[in-house]
Amino acid sequence: MKKLRIAIDMDDVMANTSKKLLQLHASLFGSSWQPNDFKGLGFQELIKAEEYQVIREKIFEKGFFADLEVLPDAQEVVSYLHENHEVFIVSAAMEFPNSLTEKQTWLGEFFPYIHWKNIVFCGDKSIITADVLIDDHEKNLITFQGKPLLFDAIHNQTLTGYQRVHSWREVKEVIDRLAHEN
Amino acid sequence: MKKLRIAIDMDDVMANTSKKLLQLHASLFGSSWQPNDFKGLGFQELIKAEEYQVIREKIFEKGFFADLEVLPDAQEVVSYLHENHEVFIVSAAMEFPNSLTEKQTWLGEFFPYIHWKNIVFCGDKSIITADVLIDDHEKNLITFQGKPLLFDAIHNQTLTGYQRVHSWREVKEVIDRLAHEN
Repeated sequence: MKKLRIAIDMDDVMANTSKKLLQLHASLFGSSWQPNDFKGLGFQELIKAEEYQVIREKIFEKGFFADLEVLPDAQEVVSYLHENHEVFIVSAAMEFPNSLTEKQTWLGEFFPYIHWKNIVFCGDKSIITADVLIDDHEKNLITFQGKPLLFDAIHNQTLTGYQRVHSWREVKEVIDRLAHEN
Repeated sequence: MKKLRIAIDMDDVMANTSKKLLQLHASLFGSSWQPNDFKGLGFQELIKAEEYQVIREKIFEKGFFADLEVLPDAQEVVSYLHENHEVFIVSAAMEFPNSLTEKQTWLGEFFPYIHWKNIVFCGDKSIITADVLIDDHEKNLITFQGKPLLFDAIHNQTLTGYQRVHSWREVKEVIDRLAHEN
């Protein structure tokens, strides 16, 4: 089995950021958007521009990234990958200055075995080199020189051209296969 | 001229971190170490272990990275490189959680033209891909797949095997040459 270097995005891959955005929008504007309503649209494209502006300000506020839910099976599978491969957490956190400390604390709480050496906060992910990148955004996957895996998210339903993984269970299967192919 | 992707370290490359460490040591222990005393030794190797422990705690405290001096000509030359190439600031900041915000603010003050997309805070720099890496530590240069440039610092005087740059003026000359060779 080949030991792979695996770069993993945080928002909407490890953490349920979309759920928090939907809850925030519901509490502020009384909406009842469901994940299925998005059909590949981004949050920014689906809601009204003036509402998005309010939501965006909330994302910049302290606390937004502090209490995100962990996505199902992420803890178990990332732990498994960490034991068998080389895992890096790579988050485009730099846009939101307050998120840096919150993301560090969040990782420490839910993924305490990830060493600080294996955490990367950046903006443009084209600076990252690894064997595999698991991410929910095409802008991050498109420049990646290794094997890109598109993590299924409400805003990327119509995106094609990438191997899609629908869950952390599926990530485990795909990585196991990749490690034995090599 | 080829447009290069240039990754630049912060501590002891853009910012005079060693000077702050020397000042801190002098103020706490009455020492009078001069840069020439190091002769390639790291700060940790030169001073007493119990003194290093005190200094290390200070590095973890809020404020340590907030008021570092900019190294001579760094502002002008990084600006020149930014205009002609693609500049990324890559700092192994993750060890010091308080440093993240301070480093962002410091960059905003002295290098305001650097976009957040072009800032990377990481631990292990082997995850970084670029054409050139300017850094003062072998541990960062040794795994780099592009052209490594060793930025001259008091703690790397005896290190060989890398092209050494002694100043930002020299960085400009070397990069100009690399861009025209390619």
